[in-house]
Amino acid sequence: MKEKPLILVTNDDGISAPGIRMLISIMNEIGDVVVVAPDSPQSAMGHAITINSTLECNKVKIDDGPQIEYSCSGTPADCVKIAVHEILDKKPDLCVSGINHGTNSSINVTYSGTMSAAREASIIGIPAIGFSLLDYSWEADFNQIKKLIKKITLKSLSNGIPKDIALNINFPKLDEDKIKGIKICTQAKAHWIEKFDKRINPQGREYYWLTGEFINNDPSKNTDEWALKNGYVSIVPVKYDFTEYKVLQELESWKL
Amino acid sequence: MKEKPLILVTNDDGISAPGIRMLISIMNEIGDVVVVAPDSPQSAMGHAITINSTLECNKVKIDDGPQIEYSCSGTPADCVKIAVHEILDKKPDLCVSGINHGTNSSINVTYSGTMSAAREASIIGIPAIGFSLLDYSWEADFNQIKKLIKKITLKSLSNGIPKDIALNINFPKLDEDKIKGIKICTQAKAHWIEKFDKRINPQGREYYWLTGEFINNDPSKNTDEWALKNGYVSIVPVKYDFTEYKVLQELESWKL
Repeated sequence: MKEKPLILVTNDDGISAPGIRMLISIMNEIGDVVVVAPDSPQSAMGHAITINSTLECNKVKIDDGPQIEYSCSGTPADCVKIAVHEILDKKPDLCVSGINHGTNSSINVTYSGTMSAAREASIIGIPAIGFSLLDYSWEADFNQIKKLIKKITLKSLSNGIPKDIALNINFPKLDEDKIKGIKICTQAKAHWIEKFDKRINPQGREYYWLTGEFINNDPSKNTDEWALKNGYVSIVPVKYDFTEYKVLQELESWKL
Repeated sequence: MKEKPLILVTNDDGISAPGIRMLISIMNEIGDVVVVAPDSPQSAMGHAITINSTLECNKVKIDDGPQIEYSCSGTPADCVKIAVHEILDKKPDLCVSGINHGTNSSINVTYSGTMSAAREASIIGIPAIGFSLLDYSWEADFNQIKKLIKKITLKSLSNGIPKDIALNINFPKLDEDKIKGIKICTQAKAHWIEKFDKRINPQGREYYWLTGEFINNDPSKNTDEWALKNGYVSIVPVKYDFTEYKVLQELESWKL
């Protein structure tokens, strides 16, 4: 690539989250950066889009970096749509989402706003990566993974991410020198056992907080959960075709 | 199955939508029905869940049917979680979602609240079906597909939906006698070309409405789009594992 690549940056924690600010600073070292990110936290928004209400999208200046930034009232997927179809003059060479404050490994990819933005980009035909650090804290130390993010991004640009794919990349919460390496993984078959914490509000009405326990019964060693637990960065190639081809024949035999 | 099956019913158009009322009436002919559905429309919510605010869930009586009903302030996926983990004493034998007012075929499955509820059930290990009619109107004629829904549901209960699968079932907007049959399909590789309708509000601020054009360039004849266009009901088996296994080796060769 002779010209500098055009890189679209978004996230789900909101445009002022430390994770996206770090990601912007890394991308500024690689290409021309346009940020279109939610104006407020949009965690666990899944692949929601805004069709029954309106969207606002305003140019903002948050720091002294060379990037151009827009703050958007919509979901992460909305941000990618409006960036590509309304704001940018040409298709970006790459879309990066994150760095998420917290994991998006295994089943969490389903609920993740970070990854829905990356998947939305892949649907539009833009190579995409979602980055997440296994640390929910606002003060998470993203410096430990700065070099790895730069390395993976450069490699993705030079090799080309396979068509229709977004990379779901999770980093263990470890110091840089403790991270053992990078593994290409499958999505672990893990899930949440939900617990609803029932409370009574001052008006006497019942309400709930969703809480839960993460259960990983997947014994396989090529999963993202295994990699992360053992000190590796996990990369899962994620697609947007939900079809389970393996059962088509079984369903045919139902003779509906 | 000797006892009547326990059937959980939900949707994304809200508990009072004609589509879910019809689905409840069909399911009452098949099993014991518990409804846990959003108290307001939740279309295009994707797989959003409520983690940063609270949920309410209240027992309601909407018609004279034998079903038990709860109206929930959350998303479709929230409804399934709270139904299984808080409201029901035992795991349902089946979860049905819909009947959606409008299509959830091809890429729309990504954004669909109807299908996120069905997928959430499949994640928890409950056989699940999402039903959608290709008619966005509130007055859509669900009578035309009543018999087909009953037939497919009974067949799903007797044969057993494959593990970890939700069925994404779409019906063409046709009279009963014009529907040519039922096809087992793959998700068409189609997408939306978004257009943002920019307007100025009374305070002079710009805002947008998301609109778009649906583009199907998939020439294959075993897709849901082909089936629907040609007068068939489409059934796509949908999974929650996003891994694209085919590219794992290619990514390995990057030697990260």
